Amino acid sequence: MKTRIGILGYGNLGRGVECAIRQNPDMELAAVFTRRNPSSVKILTETAAVRSVDEAVDWKDKLDVLILCGGSATDLPVQTPKYAEYFNVVDSFDTHARIPEHFENVDAAAKKGGKTAIISVGWDPGMFSLNRLYAGAILPEGQDYTFWGRGVSQGHSDAVRRIAGVKDAKQYTIPVDSALASVRAGENPDLTTRQKHTRECFVVPEDGADRARIEEEIRTMPNYFADYDTTVHFITDEEMKRDHSGIPHGGFVLRSGVTGWEKENRHLIEYSLKLDSNPEFTASVIVAYARAACRLAAEGDSGCKTVFDIAPAYLSAKSGQELRASML
Amino acid sequence: MKTRIGILGYGNLGRGVECAIRQNPDMELAAVFTRRNPSSVKILTETAAVRSVDEAVDWKDKLDVLILCGGSATDLPVQTPKYAEYFNVVDSFDTHARIPEHFENVDAAAKKGGKTAIISVGWDPGMFSLNRLYAGAILPEGQDYTFWGRGVSQGHSDAVRRIAGVKDAKQYTIPVDSALASVRAGENPDLTTRQKHTRECFVVPEDGADRARIEEEIRTMPNYFADYDTTVHFITDEEMKRDHSGIPHGGFVLRSGVTGWEKENRHLIEYSLKLDSNPEFTASVIVAYARAACRLAAEGDSGCKTVFDIAPAYLSAKSGQELRASML
Repeated sequence: MKTRIGILGYGNLGRGVECAIRQNPDMELAAVFTRRNPSSVKILTETAAVRSVDEAVDWKDKLDVLILCGGSATDLPVQTPKYAEYFNVVDSFDTHARIPEHFENVDAAAKKGGKTAIISVGWDPGMFSLNRLYAGAILPEGQDYTFWGRGVSQGHSDAVRRIAGVKDAKQYTIPVDSALASVRAGENPDLTTRQKHTRECFVVPEDGADRARIEEEIRTMPNYFADYDTTVHFITDEEMKRDHSGIPHGGFVLRSGVTGWEKENRHLIEYSLKLDSNPEFTASVIVAYARAACRLAAEGDSGCKTVFDIAPAYLSAKSGQELRASML
Repeated sequence: MKTRIGILGYGNLGRGVECAIRQNPDMELAAVFTRRNPSSVKILTETAAVRSVDEAVDWKDKLDVLILCGGSATDLPVQTPKYAEYFNVVDSFDTHARIPEHFENVDAAAKKGGKTAIISVGWDPGMFSLNRLYAGAILPEGQDYTFWGRGVSQGHSDAVRRIAGVKDAKQYTIPVDSALASVRAGENPDLTTRQKHTRECFVVPEDGADRARIEEEIRTMPNYFADYDTTVHFITDEEMKRDHSGIPHGGFVLRSGVTGWEKENRHLIEYSLKLDSNPEFTASVIVAYARAACRLAAEGDSGCKTVFDIAPAYLSAKSGQELRASML
């Protein structure tokens, strides 16, 4: 009996989840729920249904886990608590500052419905968070560093696109090599925002647009670019399509710490990701945690959890015995 | 109320555990148990007792966790099942092939005594195992690679020391850079033993020893060196003390995998450690899992577990709320 998955929201992340389910033989995609007209939505999985989001709750006995693929700004704060009452759910809520509030809301709903909810699943929050926790528990005296990139920031790309005269834009966040090298050398540097990352923008200008003014507006944009060294390249539509259609990302989590009676020994723990597709990787993490949600619920668990609360063995399709024999 | 820890076996690992406890304000070292004459054993912690191993069981109500710091070859297969009946225990059993058998023995004893036991804790097995599990669950279609080093292999150093004419020796295992680069480039290479690691030996010869014969015996030694490219350096006693008194180690766990409907996107997950002191880092991992053992036992858990079975939050001194607010 396969684990029956539903997807709510069929954008990049929803499609990534669909692809990831296909790579896990113990799972099947049962239905995709969309806010669009279902007949207008073409999915890849021939055996799965496409339904209006309004019908989702009717499927409550036909799905083992519902994966919520909406955005963190406005979708998930409403959707996850709503559906956690009816389904085991997993989301990728990534507004770090609002996680405690989201957790409380989802926890109350999931407990009311007797369901298991896992929030903030992906790579940051997600795998990066896990690595911060493990490394901090192992080396209580030390310093944490997180670097992101090289990768596309959707928020920064959008910000550039809103500038007058910009037809299309893509922004890459890039970790500064010398900063990474200093951390790896155990120098425990105090790094400013500018010292950690640079930003690189590829911009397709509208015909006749003032490039100097666009570049100036980008470089001085508060919060987004003013605190960074930013490079701006003007390119054509064709170049944008040819060279910048992917959604790569990645990054580094490092902890540099000391041990020994006199703190005489240094250690470096480093975790890094290099991802061709940010949404597909995020989706792959989510699907592994959907397996965990389903198993926890089967054990009678209810309430909200994060990656911190899930024993790693729950993510794997292998049994405990197989894992000990092959992976330990 | 601090978590009261006992250490059984006071070698490099035991001393590492003692140092790690000092870095965790919620823990205290209560006693060290030794097979030597207790009055001959000097420890660093003034407030802790030193007792004969024969008295260990008498402390069963005075310790929250007993950490077993013996060797995997002969000590732990006997000690861990023996003490798991009386104490919550953690060990670092690292004979990969015998883990399933050790698990069963410890599980039976721990269940009999209503105690929690966590075995095979450290970095490999341990943190490396965890990373293999997480990465494999996230990217089910992919390939795993583990590289060790640059670091001291105790077993290989001992093997060189047994050669006639060798006064002292230290062996370093070194990952081959080009092999690592190929894995990072997503080439999914099939690597032979020789292609993954080289071995470097520093040997202090006895006066008048035949160096050419020693070098030949090292290079051709079956299992230990014959399958590797090995470099041998002859050095003096003083050079050995000055340059090779540390016990550094480390390594890399990588998984290279694909996602997407047509498997068109590639991803690389990499975890690496660079350790000044192998035993102190291993000890630091063990102490974090001792915290977990104590908490699990307090929840009524009993039986044997590995790092796969422990939710990450149990390792941290912070509460779930603090973790979500600060680390997620």
